[in-house]
Amino acid sequence: MTFPRVGVIGAGQLARMMAVPANDLGIHLVALAASATDSAAQICEFVVGDYANVEDVIDFARDCDVITFEHELIPQSVIKALEISGARVYPKSDSFLFSQNKVEMRKKMDELGLPNPKWCLFDGGTSEIPFPLIAKTISGGYDGRGVFVADDPEELVNLHSSVNAPLLLEEKLSFDYEISVMVARSPHGQASTWPPTLTVQSDGICTSTITPAPELSPDLSVRAQEIALVIAQGIGLVGVMAVEIFVVGETLVINELALRPHNSGHWSIEGAVTSQFEQHLRAILDLPLGSTAMVAPFAVMGNVLGGEKSDLYRPYLHLMARNPSLKFHQYGKEVRPGRKIGHVTAIGSNLVELREEIDHAVDYIGGAIDE
Amino acid sequence: MTFPRVGVIGAGQLARMMAVPANDLGIHLVALAASATDSAAQICEFVVGDYANVEDVIDFARDCDVITFEHELIPQSVIKALEISGARVYPKSDSFLFSQNKVEMRKKMDELGLPNPKWCLFDGGTSEIPFPLIAKTISGGYDGRGVFVADDPEELVNLHSSVNAPLLLEEKLSFDYEISVMVARSPHGQASTWPPTLTVQSDGICTSTITPAPELSPDLSVRAQEIALVIAQGIGLVGVMAVEIFVVGETLVINELALRPHNSGHWSIEGAVTSQFEQHLRAILDLPLGSTAMVAPFAVMGNVLGGEKSDLYRPYLHLMARNPSLKFHQYGKEVRPGRKIGHVTAIGSNLVELREEIDHAVDYIGGAIDE
Repeated sequence: MTFPRVGVIGAGQLARMMAVPANDLGIHLVALAASATDSAAQICEFVVGDYANVEDVIDFARDCDVITFEHELIPQSVIKALEISGARVYPKSDSFLFSQNKVEMRKKMDELGLPNPKWCLFDGGTSEIPFPLIAKTISGGYDGRGVFVADDPEELVNLHSSVNAPLLLEEKLSFDYEISVMVARSPHGQASTWPPTLTVQSDGICTSTITPAPELSPDLSVRAQEIALVIAQGIGLVGVMAVEIFVVGETLVINELALRPHNSGHWSIEGAVTSQFEQHLRAILDLPLGSTAMVAPFAVMGNVLGGEKSDLYRPYLHLMARNPSLKFHQYGKEVRPGRKIGHVTAIGSNLVELREEIDHAVDYIGGAIDE
Repeated sequence: MTFPRVGVIGAGQLARMMAVPANDLGIHLVALAASATDSAAQICEFVVGDYANVEDVIDFARDCDVITFEHELIPQSVIKALEISGARVYPKSDSFLFSQNKVEMRKKMDELGLPNPKWCLFDGGTSEIPFPLIAKTISGGYDGRGVFVADDPEELVNLHSSVNAPLLLEEKLSFDYEISVMVARSPHGQASTWPPTLTVQSDGICTSTITPAPELSPDLSVRAQEIALVIAQGIGLVGVMAVEIFVVGETLVINELALRPHNSGHWSIEGAVTSQFEQHLRAILDLPLGSTAMVAPFAVMGNVLGGEKSDLYRPYLHLMARNPSLKFHQYGKEVRPGRKIGHVTAIGSNLVELREEIDHAVDYIGGAIDE
């Protein structure tokens, strides 16, 4: 048997969902977990270790044919050390940087001639960007963390001194909505996109997605996918990447990159011939990419956020009876308020119904409604 | 957390494929395996034990909320002992019997007024069934094993003395083709069927399936599903069951029952909203059943049978490039000639193309063709 062994650094829900197509394809997946109770560690082979510790990571990589990531927190120095040790690491450190450092990402988008918001690096002094503006920590932010609005210079100065590090400042756009384009690219340069996804946010957290983004014109849809393909090529992506894009009238502006399977691509498990998780594996193993065609006109996904209820099983009785087409995904995580603990997907042709069903399901599981 | 724990007796590919929806639903699945290298043991929690040993099985069941099966080999005495011990076992021993004992099955079909072939029990003497006839061992046969053709009385007598046990004799039908209807039923009596599947056999082994069975008239399709529902109700089924049916002109004749997920239902992983594996879990946990609607007009599945080639990974390079829509399922089993080691599924609307692609893929993986 010559099936390869893939090591994933991180053992959250993304690694957990990667384990399914790995098993189907016969690929051995092993996760570097913080503990045996991690989401992925519950269901696949794992090694306990510290992703920030270079020895742990190199030890972990020794038996693997390829190493990949499910989060951006692993230090560049560790990825570089891994590469120097001879490990095959995808995405490469040079590419992954653009997912870890927002200033490097902005520079690269400018270099590629792609649409950035107005931006500047701020480390004290006066802002070139008019107020109100968006201030972001350069690394480490996600799900709305590390992203702030500064209404005036005083607020910016206070923020800067509380963060105690340089900030990326961006113009605050009045965008119509935000989309995400998932793209995959393999070492030999094959690339593919899925249809752009509308991401619905609340307090900086994605609560639901609709694919394809329903109000996006065919022209903008093509342009958004072109942008994702240009970035993939331009940064030498290997694996899947989410490109988050603001839609402002007929204009597209790049918001963020994530070089890994992403919440905005979860719909693809049921909604596309090839899921983002399978595609990521195909890409990092340099296998031909799978079809990204949808299997239904629409796919709607809702994140289950932790609420008052801790019993996530009992809601099945009502929800499965009410709608036999809902697809549930539990992450096996302890319920904490606001934490993403699962998601629900429905596919079909009636978008209004699909949205209602998904909104109802996540509200019911989370405990916001009782019936 | 109140997620239940399901114990599966057996750790082959059926338990392996059951693990996927179990993880998605947050259900803890544990398999009773013969060894750590069993197909399911490679990817889910398992206990090593002997399914024919009542102590092993009762020990195994102790921590489980419900026990189910992935094969018919577990002795009735063990299932009964398990039930007496207080374990919740689905399907129940009384139902499972019809999957284990072909004479009891024939009697039950007669009792339910359902279409049997002419049959009789034979333990020497003269056959009531005209020659050539089908002779079957009463228990333990599958994939063509335990099924024989006797052309004349002498052959029957020789067979009887070599088997050294009573035989079930059945008329040898000139059937047009064989279909399988997958049906699910839960303890509170909810039941559902998937569209009937054409099963293509070679030497008694299913090589491929097409769903829905393309030449089956709408009337016969409804009748076949009615038969499956009547059997499910009549035997008190809990879980999923395959009802294999011969189509003879406008007549349906029941061939076999299998009270578990079945090869003829593998297409449902990609082809239906709810797969047979998820439905089995829902049924045995008395959760509302999922939608059995198809997500494409046709689903074609081909079994990968072990051949000359032992490298099952390398074929991906050619096959994935040739057809980006193929869905591969590896069972992690050692390659042995004729053994089912995986399957490939494709869904879509062009049945001719789908069949060609699946036939090509399984021939290429198995080594029968080189390009």
